[in-house]
Amino acid sequence: MNDGLWRRERILVFAADHGVAHHSVSLYPVRVGGQVAEAAARGETAIGVLARVLGAQLVIADVGLTGESRPGVASYRVAAGSADIALGPGMTPEQLRTGIAAGHSLAAALAERSDVIVLGEIGIGNTTVAAALLAALTGLSPEAVCGRGTGLDAQGLERKRATVAAALRANSVSRAEPLECLRRLGGHEFTALVGAMLAGAASRRLILLDGFATGVAALVACRLRPAVRDYLIAGHRSAEPAHAHVLTELGLEPLLDLRLRLGEGSGAALALPLIGLAARLHAEMGRFDETGIERAPIEPGSA
Amino acid sequence: MNDGLWRRERILVFAADHGVAHHSVSLYPVRVGGQVAEAAARGETAIGVLARVLGAQLVIADVGLTGESRPGVASYRVAAGSADIALGPGMTPEQLRTGIAAGHSLAAALAERSDVIVLGEIGIGNTTVAAALLAALTGLSPEAVCGRGTGLDAQGLERKRATVAAALRANSVSRAEPLECLRRLGGHEFTALVGAMLAGAASRRLILLDGFATGVAALVACRLRPAVRDYLIAGHRSAEPAHAHVLTELGLEPLLDLRLRLGEGSGAALALPLIGLAARLHAEMGRFDETGIERAPIEPGSA
Repeated sequence: MNDGLWRRERILVFAADHGVAHHSVSLYPVRVGGQVAEAAARGETAIGVLARVLGAQLVIADVGLTGESRPGVASYRVAAGSADIALGPGMTPEQLRTGIAAGHSLAAALAERSDVIVLGEIGIGNTTVAAALLAALTGLSPEAVCGRGTGLDAQGLERKRATVAAALRANSVSRAEPLECLRRLGGHEFTALVGAMLAGAASRRLILLDGFATGVAALVACRLRPAVRDYLIAGHRSAEPAHAHVLTELGLEPLLDLRLRLGEGSGAALALPLIGLAARLHAEMGRFDETGIERAPIEPGSA
Repeated sequence: MNDGLWRRERILVFAADHGVAHHSVSLYPVRVGGQVAEAAARGETAIGVLARVLGAQLVIADVGLTGESRPGVASYRVAAGSADIALGPGMTPEQLRTGIAAGHSLAAALAERSDVIVLGEIGIGNTTVAAALLAALTGLSPEAVCGRGTGLDAQGLERKRATVAAALRANSVSRAEPLECLRRLGGHEFTALVGAMLAGAASRRLILLDGFATGVAALVACRLRPAVRDYLIAGHRSAEPAHAHVLTELGLEPLLDLRLRLGEGSGAALALPLIGLAARLHAEMGRFDETGIERAPIEPGSA
């Protein structure tokens, strides 16, 4: 009976490492990013299980991990990690172009055989990068954009805020230049996400966003091309407090609000059935005149 | 790949008519309840489509409709509608017992072959009944418990509040007597829902609640047997404002909050995939030591 319901979705997860992670802004060492990407490709992480259960094709793409290449992870590596944004630009202009092109070409290929593209990311330290990029794009303070990520304590949160403040000092950039914000304060998964969103919108496909990092990438994509906004659906609101600012800025209302912060596209994947069900309701529910149900309104008293 | 995910759910929808509907507290004439039940059984309404797409067995049970019996609708009719609660008790003690028993026996049979029982209702005027019953169970005012239902205007809302106030005057009852509150201020779908919840909890099955009416029935069930609470999941928060009071009283947080008010169990059915996905994540996600992903926390600086 439910054949075809979740057949036409693809889940695309970009993985990258970040020079800024060496400031101990995450509970995990940088190499865990690659470990998670590999486990996801084996179907062992949250997104791996969800993709399998939903019957959705899952592509894990290395666009900027460090270390050896990982079995099952598609290699589109732009560089071995981004540079430390607390010291200067995260990427070179060439890396920016290559990263956007990588995301664009992957998503354009998937769009040929899908109705919905679910976007996610894996990257140790990337809530710090997302926070810095959000601050640059909006003028919000380091206090407003930084949350506990995968579980920082109060001291860790202080370090993260100081690191974001340092990144903003080291990368003076106007919010009117979204690409330059992205190059200086972003990372390789962010550039790939932006490219994927531009391609998805150009192909007129629904783009289902995950949490904080994909949301910040969406802000960049919408600044570059406002029409992208019409193709975005916010899968959920994450537990990272600044995600609420991002959703407000995007003008999106999330489908789910379950205080998740697993990343990897998992919050978006959980929302995928809702989109399929909504589409089927739209296509298959009878109209009043077909179902034999009388229309409202009636006159008071005529019951 | 997704075999078995949504195979073990049953959707049980109780339909009934209400004497109080003759006070023009709904936009629809009473006979529309039976029309909706019949269309649902044919798979043409929201719950009909959702059950088909989700592959869940759908049972539409007439526990108190008026008029002819409806094709596809299982007949467990306790009476032809409830009496007008604005004038006196909605049900006799015998009808109360028969209605609870009907819901109990239907749910107990379904529980033998399901992990989750989704409960919904169809009944023109039953947000008025739910409002009156909620007021009796909690002491909330007619203003606090009445909303616009399927779309009353301001005048209609005033009529509804006056009708609830009249029902509370006509049925003096202590909130310490939940069964007597149910008999006087409820209707046949409410008694069947209470019976179904008692049976579901006794069989240790998850009970997925829909909106305002199922929530008020759950309040009665929990007052009768507090352990029922442990088996309840709130599928969604409906657009009917008093549903928030009900969820607070039950101590439940809804999975979805999409401003729906379609009834028929549709909000609960939309939440069903989340429960299946959560169960699969719980069963299939790897532990850190199995996946090759390092554990947090690490010492600051060791990245």
